[in-house]
Amino acid sequence: MSGLGRGFKKLTDVETALNKFLMYVKPVEDIEVLSLADLPGRVLAEDVVSPVDVPSFNRSAMDGYAVLSSDVISASMDNPVRLRLVGRSTTSQPYSGELHSGEAVKIDTGAILPKNADAVVMLEYASESGGFVDIFKNVGKYDNVSLKGEDIKEGEVVAPKGRMVTPHDLMALGSLNLDKFRVYRKVRIGMVAFGSELVDSSPVPEGKVREVNRLFLKNVLSEYPVEVIDYGIVDDDIDLIREVLIRSSKENDLTISFGGTSLGEGDLVREAIEEMGSIIVHGVALQPSKPVLLALIGDKPYIGMPGYPVAVAISTDVFVNPVIKKLAGIHGVYIPRVIRGKLTRRVPSKVGLKHFVRVKIVVRDDIYVEPIYASGAGVTSSLSMADGYLVIEEGKEGFDEGEYVNVILYRRFLEDV
Amino acid sequence: MSGLGRGFKKLTDVETALNKFLMYVKPVEDIEVLSLADLPGRVLAEDVVSPVDVPSFNRSAMDGYAVLSSDVISASMDNPVRLRLVGRSTTSQPYSGELHSGEAVKIDTGAILPKNADAVVMLEYASESGGFVDIFKNVGKYDNVSLKGEDIKEGEVVAPKGRMVTPHDLMALGSLNLDKFRVYRKVRIGMVAFGSELVDSSPVPEGKVREVNRLFLKNVLSEYPVEVIDYGIVDDDIDLIREVLIRSSKENDLTISFGGTSLGEGDLVREAIEEMGSIIVHGVALQPSKPVLLALIGDKPYIGMPGYPVAVAISTDVFVNPVIKKLAGIHGVYIPRVIRGKLTRRVPSKVGLKHFVRVKIVVRDDIYVEPIYASGAGVTSSLSMADGYLVIEEGKEGFDEGEYVNVILYRRFLEDV
Repeated sequence: MSGLGRGFKKLTDVETALNKFLMYVKPVEDIEVLSLADLPGRVLAEDVVSPVDVPSFNRSAMDGYAVLSSDVISASMDNPVRLRLVGRSTTSQPYSGELHSGEAVKIDTGAILPKNADAVVMLEYASESGGFVDIFKNVGKYDNVSLKGEDIKEGEVVAPKGRMVTPHDLMALGSLNLDKFRVYRKVRIGMVAFGSELVDSSPVPEGKVREVNRLFLKNVLSEYPVEVIDYGIVDDDIDLIREVLIRSSKENDLTISFGGTSLGEGDLVREAIEEMGSIIVHGVALQPSKPVLLALIGDKPYIGMPGYPVAVAISTDVFVNPVIKKLAGIHGVYIPRVIRGKLTRRVPSKVGLKHFVRVKIVVRDDIYVEPIYASGAGVTSSLSMADGYLVIEEGKEGFDEGEYVNVILYRRFLEDV
Repeated sequence: MSGLGRGFKKLTDVETALNKFLMYVKPVEDIEVLSLADLPGRVLAEDVVSPVDVPSFNRSAMDGYAVLSSDVISASMDNPVRLRLVGRSTTSQPYSGELHSGEAVKIDTGAILPKNADAVVMLEYASESGGFVDIFKNVGKYDNVSLKGEDIKEGEVVAPKGRMVTPHDLMALGSLNLDKFRVYRKVRIGMVAFGSELVDSSPVPEGKVREVNRLFLKNVLSEYPVEVIDYGIVDDDIDLIREVLIRSSKENDLTISFGGTSLGEGDLVREAIEEMGSIIVHGVALQPSKPVLLALIGDKPYIGMPGYPVAVAISTDVFVNPVIKKLAGIHGVYIPRVIRGKLTRRVPSKVGLKHFVRVKIVVRDDIYVEPIYASGAGVTSSLSMADGYLVIEEGKEGFDEGEYVNVILYRRFLEDV
């Protein structure tokens, strides 16, 4: 682990740091061809254009009787029109003949409309007896009919390039009679933790610390189309550090490390990067998480984070997510879960630093936002006590007690309500 | 597939229907013991209580020199205090002796504080030469020290029973020197689609429809601790329907079916349920998705949805998610992603029905909410064109053009900005 950002001559503001770094990040262009079931969470590499009309035939939108609308123009409760029942059209067995004036075909929802039929009378406005059906209500042309192409027209763009496919998209994509879709391959991410004090499981020997940042990252990133390769824990040894960073950069689109980016002695990561890569930014005006190191190893982006869990959580939100979004070719703006509430206490901040303050949401007569005071980025309990972050921008001097603020949530369920 | 809700004598309002049904839903009580890496997304079956202090020893919060604070009370830039450097404490090798007055130990961030030392002087306020170190700044007791138990105290509740574990929770749970956690077993969900017109893959023969509801549900539910068992597509045959519903109810905590819940002929699900289970609600005041059937088969909950994709998407939000939340033992209130914007057109609605209107978000000079007019629940393209739903409560007569409304998003990325 490493100290928190002492000794940086100049801190770069978060937006400048990120934009500068993103200029060097090139989206993955390799393409895979997948079938529908494998699409969720993947990013479309081209517009999906429908090769067909949906529905591909005129079909009934109701259970009822397929008719010629001109036959039942005068039908009413008092003056029903009697039609001859000539057959049945179900979804498994369509009516094969064509309909003539004076005839009706009993039809199920979703079944193909018989030739010449142009409307469906709903069951409750009809009464069957002895091979005939009495129609008690007139219908207009195409009433209760889903027309060929009414949902999706041949040639229509159903989902755009750059979309990360959601379960909802599957519904539309599944109706196109397509089963091959072009998506970008998954982004490959290498991760490694630096620190001779770290161990990988419990129980932890005296003086050692369990490494959990890699487990955190792997799980946070499961929301993105990524493949995470874990290079484990590496001792504080410049040769080992250099070796693993070179290897990961060769094998992956992005490398992320934890620990060793501060400026104390024994912080060897910067030294290793200076020898073999180029530093874009070291030290950002982000509280807590100043000692972030953004660099290139070869032409591959590298994000070095401090080792403290709280700093890792925040650097991931601020730097890792936007970089992966670009690498993955995802279009659009990320929308977090947000809740608005009233601050229970004043939250001070230092002008010139962007602060992420962990807060808990408490719902009583109003929604309250309770800052969790913790003495440092090493205080992991604040992450399980909190529900999300209050972000204080660089130019702002904190928030006052009683102010309404927006909180970015990292939970889907709020417990204290 | 089936018609949309004609013929129901009485529609039950959504809240009443859900609450009535939830009374019969019993949380899963079986418990599994998992290690840290398997926790994300699982639900804690008991409060997690820390068996240890975190940190488990006093440690340095900075790179610097461990000292007795009483030795450096008078230290300043003009009057440095000279201490004898007696050793070094690193995270891999702590200093084994004890510190006496007049002595200092060089120390790394995270390393154990030597016995008797009670403060750390940061590197930049010290200067080393020939076995001595000059201290240029006084420090108070415990300055730059993380005290034993300062993060988490032995006996403290770190995460409560009923919490669905997030990646952020892993950070705190990973620091407890525990590796066994008690969680509820996953909820088992059986799903089946009814309809002789349905097929499971493309290309789709003329007159047939590809079944995508199961794929949708499986993917939507991947956010919950569930195991989904797929019973495939079953023809419109009451014996087959009865058989699969009985089998799924025996094997699972919840059964969900698509199609066959409307009141037309050929809709056999209600008939099957009436024979072997008990209907709690059939027909809800939900637009689109009236023909929802909530029932018990044995003592197991069963949700029968209409077959139309849009109705499935909405019934899943409204009924499936709350039922699974209860089965899974998750505490708290679900917070969706929400965005607020200005309606581009009037949205009418029918009083007495809760409406879910699919909308697209367009960001120009303001955030605009554009309703997607689609002629029915069968119009799947609306799901890929939309970004989310505008919910209109039962008592409300729609919204006017220009009104600001909240939209529940089902995408994480908004494209049209």
